[in-house]
Amino acid sequence: MTERIAVPLPKAYLLLNHGPTVLVSSAHGGRRNVMAAAWNMALDFDPPKVAVVIDKATLTRELVEASGEFVLNVPARQQAAMTLAVGTQSGREIDKFSRVGVGAAAASAVGAPLIEGCLAWLECRVIAEPHIQQTYDLFLGEVVAAWADPEAFANGRWQFADAARRSIHYQAGGRFFATGEAFDA
Amino acid sequence: MTERIAVPLPKAYLLLNHGPTVLVSSAHGGRRNVMAAAWNMALDFDPPKVAVVIDKATLTRELVEASGEFVLNVPARQQAAMTLAVGTQSGREIDKFSRVGVGAAAASAVGAPLIEGCLAWLECRVIAEPHIQQTYDLFLGEVVAAWADPEAFANGRWQFADAARRSIHYQAGGRFFATGEAFDA
Repeated sequence: MTERIAVPLPKAYLLLNHGPTVLVSSAHGGRRNVMAAAWNMALDFDPPKVAVVIDKATLTRELVEASGEFVLNVPARQQAAMTLAVGTQSGREIDKFSRVGVGAAAASAVGAPLIEGCLAWLECRVIAEPHIQQTYDLFLGEVVAAWADPEAFANGRWQFADAARRSIHYQAGGRFFATGEAFDA
Repeated sequence: MTERIAVPLPKAYLLLNHGPTVLVSSAHGGRRNVMAAAWNMALDFDPPKVAVVIDKATLTRELVEASGEFVLNVPARQQAAMTLAVGTQSGREIDKFSRVGVGAAAASAVGAPLIEGCLAWLECRVIAEPHIQQTYDLFLGEVVAAWADPEAFANGRWQFADAARRSIHYQAGGRFFATGEAFDA
């Protein structure tokens, strides 16, 4: 299990500020799922909020609407194949946790699981906005707990040391970009 | 002037899919402005839509609400200092175009300008959603024209060759990440 340290809530937006692709995990009524989402962003600082697009066809959509909760997990480069697999297969057809080989741990404040091996985790409660959920598949969430692997994020700053443990950004067709070098403008 | 080629609208989401920080340009009634926005994402494929957070305190907010239009410009690493400058100064106090030294060209379908030297441009019309604009500073837009520097994006794919012409991802405190290496999962 990757180590996890709590990220103070006013710093949680930093986990998404650079635009990584995330995994959206969800659970309800004994079912659970995980999908990939490049279309996510921070929405506010404190209390922290996020926005994410969750298509109507997905099992994730059903579980998020039923539970009012989700977790945004920030995967590492070494999890890119898994990220692609859970992004291209449906939880209606397979149990991605067993079939893709995705480890899950209990979250602290929501029923959705934390995906093991990730770089960071944002536990979220849906802010109900039925019109935009229905019209645009757009979900807003308040971050109620946040965690990070201290090897990758500490003191409010990403500090990628290991190439396999950098965050990733989906392009298309199975191709990602790794988060590149940091520089001061 | 950077060369620009049209990006077919169903491919426009690819310009934002990897989560770059963008510049939001706007114009209305003889005034214009540009600000930086890390909080942006694609929202739909075809017709393409985007989402972006525009704070109430900004001149950009006033111009976008008055005109119903904006452009998302994807800056290159060589524009990081300019991106930081337009992200930390207010258009209410200075003319960023002259004071920061930002070049602007006419867009094709909206009154907001295209920022010169960028990697890509998405001309957008606001999809009016007053409740989420007011409550979350969240603006949705339909992309009505899209352009890219063919040296950086062609045939539906980013192909960064020059380190100075990679896209960038804002972290905090003046620090960015460059978009890193591409890899297939």
